[in-house]
Amino acid sequence: MSASPLTRADCAALDAADPLSAKRDEFALPEGVIYLDGNSLGALPRRVVARMRQAVEHEWGEGLIRSWNDAGWYPAPQRTGAAIARLIGAKADEVVVCDSTSVNLYKLLRGALHMRPGRGTIVTETGNFPTDGYVSQAVAEETGAQLVAVAPDAVPRAIARAGDGLALVHLTQVNYRSGLMHDMAAITRAAHDAGALVIWDLCHSAGTLPVDLNGCEADFAVGCGYKYLNGGPGAPSFVFVARRHQATFRQPIAGWHGHARPFAFDEDYVPAAGIARMLTGTAPQLGIIALEEALEVFDGVDMQALRRKGQALGDLFIRLVEQEIAGHGFGLASPRDAGRRGSQVALTHAQGYAIMQALIARGVIGDFRTPDILRFGLAGLYLRHVDIWDAVATLRAVMEGGLWDRPEYHAKKAVT
Amino acid sequence: MSASPLTRADCAALDAADPLSAKRDEFALPEGVIYLDGNSLGALPRRVVARMRQAVEHEWGEGLIRSWNDAGWYPAPQRTGAAIARLIGAKADEVVVCDSTSVNLYKLLRGALHMRPGRGTIVTETGNFPTDGYVSQAVAEETGAQLVAVAPDAVPRAIARAGDGLALVHLTQVNYRSGLMHDMAAITRAAHDAGALVIWDLCHSAGTLPVDLNGCEADFAVGCGYKYLNGGPGAPSFVFVARRHQATFRQPIAGWHGHARPFAFDEDYVPAAGIARMLTGTAPQLGIIALEEALEVFDGVDMQALRRKGQALGDLFIRLVEQEIAGHGFGLASPRDAGRRGSQVALTHAQGYAIMQALIARGVIGDFRTPDILRFGLAGLYLRHVDIWDAVATLRAVMEGGLWDRPEYHAKKAVT
Repeated sequence: MSASPLTRADCAALDAADPLSAKRDEFALPEGVIYLDGNSLGALPRRVVARMRQAVEHEWGEGLIRSWNDAGWYPAPQRTGAAIARLIGAKADEVVVCDSTSVNLYKLLRGALHMRPGRGTIVTETGNFPTDGYVSQAVAEETGAQLVAVAPDAVPRAIARAGDGLALVHLTQVNYRSGLMHDMAAITRAAHDAGALVIWDLCHSAGTLPVDLNGCEADFAVGCGYKYLNGGPGAPSFVFVARRHQATFRQPIAGWHGHARPFAFDEDYVPAAGIARMLTGTAPQLGIIALEEALEVFDGVDMQALRRKGQALGDLFIRLVEQEIAGHGFGLASPRDAGRRGSQVALTHAQGYAIMQALIARGVIGDFRTPDILRFGLAGLYLRHVDIWDAVATLRAVMEGGLWDRPEYHAKKAVT
Repeated sequence: MSASPLTRADCAALDAADPLSAKRDEFALPEGVIYLDGNSLGALPRRVVARMRQAVEHEWGEGLIRSWNDAGWYPAPQRTGAAIARLIGAKADEVVVCDSTSVNLYKLLRGALHMRPGRGTIVTETGNFPTDGYVSQAVAEETGAQLVAVAPDAVPRAIARAGDGLALVHLTQVNYRSGLMHDMAAITRAAHDAGALVIWDLCHSAGTLPVDLNGCEADFAVGCGYKYLNGGPGAPSFVFVARRHQATFRQPIAGWHGHARPFAFDEDYVPAAGIARMLTGTAPQLGIIALEEALEVFDGVDMQALRRKGQALGDLFIRLVEQEIAGHGFGLASPRDAGRRGSQVALTHAQGYAIMQALIARGVIGDFRTPDILRFGLAGLYLRHVDIWDAVATLRAVMEGGLWDRPEYHAKKAVT
């Protein structure tokens, strides 16, 4: 890439050399859309269409209750967990799919606190995704733990200060707004040195970065099925418990599917031996089936290559914004250093909400996050370098024409 | 119906006079199957097939993140809750759909206990569905409450004995094995007279009986989306909180979708004003969409007529078993009185497991529940009287030919 201004032809050349370029054809992307919101809802893998028809019409409609055995529904939470494990540096029997991220966070916080009796401090970060903050506040309140929320950069200092009182550290690896990435290995080591456990939220890293939970000796993790894993709207979450903790971990929502023998219909609860103890109720099969099928897209994907592409798309986005729309009032809310940035770029602008609506109306779909963040997700499986060019060109047209300043772009929507 | 032996022609005559007979055509029932397990997984309503294709291919695939606003995903938990409310005697704003039955039970038990400070007794019943027992045991353990589990008939006495210490009564309206039905009005009144609150599990009543929560002045209820509501495998659960309790109810799993303004991304948790505070994480849209569409089948259904049909099918089943297979060692585990029995008939037999496998192999699908129960669900929306005749005729053939005594019918399956 030359130091002279980049052109769309330069971007096309990068696409021609992209080892992941063929993956895009595996997604059903609508005409006329540049989709930069795969970190809110991943695009539809084509193969999911046929799989869902089979699940509804054949497995449910024809197989009925028999499909719990015959169509493999019963072990689907474990099987899908094992498929995710490969993407996050975990063993197959350390991950299971169930419930929502919020519910699984609750289980992890409660269960992990129970493993550190006599310690009452939870160190967490400000500016985390709301549900992380809400659930940890609620757990702190009900257990009497002290929640210490500090800025992301201040986490190592807070760990050191908490000393012997430190029970847990609860962080999101990649921040949902800024994309700032924590050093998972270093923080986990520091927490362990203090005698504490760590819960990692991987919502914005699983499926786009080569997470290495076991390489970092991580304890617990949770993440989302519907962002970079492309599992569909409201897809179930995944939860990781390191093998060494599974036998002693006590999850609070003791539902029948976490029982050692669910179909023995015993009166007393006996938790399953391994990761299955994280299960609670009957598995949401339609959601799990979509997620499991979507994960097939990762077959043959080198996560390091996917990471490099996400970084390259982010660097390109930042460079083009600075080249094409300097002087229009945008700030950069993401780290400039690709090594500290997840697969997204966040810009700030005082008119961010209206500008994003104007972009969406023109087929460039990102999202807005309060107070002033335009967030662009960069899913390397289906985005091209020319898409970044075209997105920034549209943003330039919106700004130069003042096209964002229309009443309909200021009207707030229920979901932003 | 004459006192002489019933014939298949008598059953056909009953079908000809059945006001609900046309509903059967709205379901995609497989050829050669008599489906008596709608209380484990309801049959597929035909209309769900097209709706799911639209949801996956159009709403997810084309609409992408925009569908949260444009396809009505965001208010789906409330909209689907309102559709269920009509079936259980609740107001539209008293029911919401989310999570699993087990997770919602946990929320209700924790939140309801919190509303009765200084009282520490939970009265519940033995022989309840396992998850009810497990979750209430876990909540009792973590809160220090005393769980008093008594036989269903002894519940009124246990309420009287608990006196001022009684915080909660937690029961399932219709027992999953026997089909025994509690008197919801009388028990709720007795609990209220003692100053306590009641949580009703409606898993085996919603969608088959005219439940009257508000008529009984019920406090809280929970139920299953995948049994008589036909919402599909692992469909999300519904939860009811009476209006008078909504403002003070505190649910423990404080996820972002229960927040008053989820998309304000506030740092502090402020619960939503009404039933939405029962929500936790992002709604499992594929599951909710299937359930919402399935509920359309109830349009125009008189729940009293559905109840009468369920009772008639049960009475017929019992009469035919006694007429056709007396002397083969079956007992009746359900109440003979249709007024005390839900929409199912449970038989006992020492070889119940193998007999059920032999039936299933011949297309008569019920299920087995330990230790010796053959359970037959009687979903009045899609079952005919002749189906009951044919099912019992098959059972007779299995018994008279000793067809159940084959090794493959004794082999245990993962899901029974």
